[in-house]
Amino acid sequence: MRVEVICTGDEVLTGKIVNTNFAYISQKLEDVGLSVAWETTVGDDRESLLQAFRLAGARADAVIVNGGLGPTVDDLSQEIAAQAAGVPLVLNEEWLTKMEDFFRRRSRVMPPNNRKQAMLPTTAEVIDNPIGTACGFALDIGQARFYFTPGVPRELKRMLEEQIIPRLLAKSGLQTTIHLKRFHSYGLGESHVDALLSGVDALVPDGSVKLGFRAHYPQLETKLTVRGRDIDDVRAKLAPVEAEVRKRLGNFILAEDDQTLEGVVLAELTRRGATLTIVETFTSGQIAARLAHLPGAENVFRRGLLSRDLAEIYAAVGVQAPSGETTRETAEAVARAVRQQTGTTYALAVLIDLDEGADRIEFGGTICLAIATADDAASRRSRIVGGREWVRLGAVELALDCLRRQLQGLPVYERTDFEKVDKA
Amino acid sequence: MRVEVICTGDEVLTGKIVNTNFAYISQKLEDVGLSVAWETTVGDDRESLLQAFRLAGARADAVIVNGGLGPTVDDLSQEIAAQAAGVPLVLNEEWLTKMEDFFRRRSRVMPPNNRKQAMLPTTAEVIDNPIGTACGFALDIGQARFYFTPGVPRELKRMLEEQIIPRLLAKSGLQTTIHLKRFHSYGLGESHVDALLSGVDALVPDGSVKLGFRAHYPQLETKLTVRGRDIDDVRAKLAPVEAEVRKRLGNFILAEDDQTLEGVVLAELTRRGATLTIVETFTSGQIAARLAHLPGAENVFRRGLLSRDLAEIYAAVGVQAPSGETTRETAEAVARAVRQQTGTTYALAVLIDLDEGADRIEFGGTICLAIATADDAASRRSRIVGGREWVRLGAVELALDCLRRQLQGLPVYERTDFEKVDKA
Repeated sequence: MRVEVICTGDEVLTGKIVNTNFAYISQKLEDVGLSVAWETTVGDDRESLLQAFRLAGARADAVIVNGGLGPTVDDLSQEIAAQAAGVPLVLNEEWLTKMEDFFRRRSRVMPPNNRKQAMLPTTAEVIDNPIGTACGFALDIGQARFYFTPGVPRELKRMLEEQIIPRLLAKSGLQTTIHLKRFHSYGLGESHVDALLSGVDALVPDGSVKLGFRAHYPQLETKLTVRGRDIDDVRAKLAPVEAEVRKRLGNFILAEDDQTLEGVVLAELTRRGATLTIVETFTSGQIAARLAHLPGAENVFRRGLLSRDLAEIYAAVGVQAPSGETTRETAEAVARAVRQQTGTTYALAVLIDLDEGADRIEFGGTICLAIATADDAASRRSRIVGGREWVRLGAVELALDCLRRQLQGLPVYERTDFEKVDKA
Repeated sequence: MRVEVICTGDEVLTGKIVNTNFAYISQKLEDVGLSVAWETTVGDDRESLLQAFRLAGARADAVIVNGGLGPTVDDLSQEIAAQAAGVPLVLNEEWLTKMEDFFRRRSRVMPPNNRKQAMLPTTAEVIDNPIGTACGFALDIGQARFYFTPGVPRELKRMLEEQIIPRLLAKSGLQTTIHLKRFHSYGLGESHVDALLSGVDALVPDGSVKLGFRAHYPQLETKLTVRGRDIDDVRAKLAPVEAEVRKRLGNFILAEDDQTLEGVVLAELTRRGATLTIVETFTSGQIAARLAHLPGAENVFRRGLLSRDLAEIYAAVGVQAPSGETTRETAEAVARAVRQQTGTTYALAVLIDLDEGADRIEFGGTICLAIATADDAASRRSRIVGGREWVRLGAVELALDCLRRQLQGLPVYERTDFEKVDKA
């Protein structure tokens, strides 16, 4: 089945907004085993829209159109859809009532120009939008089934997942129970994980498990797309592959599915009623900012201490300033001292020595981090190279991941692919 | 002149990467008075590429193709360009030598598969890429001139700005001296600024100054695109409009052109040899993280203190804990105390009372912030509504902007469009 996507709107065409809706749609389709063959972006322009609809209608089996369902004069999708399909527009009384209710529930009167959103081509099948006034719909243009979706991301997401993907799967004849299992890791590059997981998808010999990746430094997402007759079939197919991925990636898996690294750390701390202090240097608050604003963190995050000047850190926590370069021992001393000072269960100290000179691809930093508890301090040293921003992002992730490892009883030190040298 | 853009590559088509290159190209063209009429994204697929080239070649005057110039087998742009133009590929000896030099300068030997990057259609005009091995080129397909550019963003940017835009402007017959002047502001919405600036572009009656906006909450970018015969003509046209924009937006202009808010704050502090302490609550390090990692901040940023618990902040800086809600006075007391404690020139304290309950669109926060110096403390109170993330982003920008205002001798309090209530 050939699927195309048409994105509409002057804001997208002129680059005023980056087209994240398209990436989202395409990824979602990939996740269920479909793929987009062609994408077109056109502005709020009658002639371009008509031409785009006709071209796609002649080439594709299914077309997802995004945007142009709003109440203003430059929202043209219904009008041009009707024109391309050769049918008139007609007021959909049901959608009109729904919109009036929508406004009434918010104690507002529907402005007259919203009426336009209920004008649909006569042949349109309504696709519900439970969270907005833009009415989704489907109809045939040329040889293709067209699915019209709102430009507002949260409305698009809900409609795509709940309404359009099931229709596409039914149309494609693919088995309609699809499950996406995701693993998030830090420290291993995409090609390394690809090699480590070589053959896992073949554990299910009928090809219904597909392995994929999405890298967003410093994290990597490993995806298993599983197709089956029903949910039990999917579960049965996924189980051995899932177990094998967990075994092969081991401690590097920091979260699964919708979990995040910071969420996992926060949950571990919350579960044991623990509190946390964080000391940062070059990362300048970026580690704390990942964690401390989350709902529930108000009971966990006790104190953050930041300085670009190590002597200032030593003075603030009452550690005798050592001479020479930062070491694991100084990080441990800082973590121990600040834990004592603030009375928290855990203290994380992340001290960074940056290279001298201007930013460049060879620019690096040496990270010494320590996690202190009442009984002990774990620490590691790591060198990351690749420019100031790369060092900063890498250090933030390394620190949060070491904290995760410590909380989960795993070794804080394990060699990662992002380190240049390691004298741990 | 009709311009189209074709983006190529499986990573973009499958949504693995968001297509920021297209938004960049389109904005750059808008900035010089050109616009993109149509965009197509296709994968690394011979048939799709050929079809996309032929369709665009039949519709447009100029087509920018992005991606597919790399050394691997799935990089197909040169091959399909030759096919679409009906000419053979031939080895460009000059580019081959250039690539060999490129590797030699990096003490490496050119891998054999890079040779492919020097294979160009016989009719191609070479477009230099001074920072990579992908060879840009131009040729005619159908009725259009095609410009092939690399997918690597920094290579694309350099080639587009230095080589392709001048060629497009020459082709379009537009006056070729173009200047883009940008103003960054915080606190006024796009429609408000649009109203405030009504008519400024008409100060130059020949229509050679164009006003535009780009909103990225919490900041707004106001753009003046000026066209003229030469740089003196451009300067003469820009001067009265620029002065009028400065007058009308006044204290709300926080930076111009490539400046950033945090960069302006850091420069002001550096210029006077001043030091800074920051106290944060719900923003959790996000304010410090904007500023303290920048080159030069190591001499300015002395200390950051973070906690989600106000009592913890009061205890840490030795302020008597007041009862009841946060006020401007408590923020001032905290700023004064921490400034004394750390001995810095300035101390910024940003205390936030969050609403109770789950995140929702009506969720808000009350921000009390103060900036203390040896002599004085300035403060303001502000209420921002729109969900947790909106409050957090707004508070970070408000705090940095108040610090900018204080450093520039401007009033720290001025009503913004983002505040719900204000009892300053």
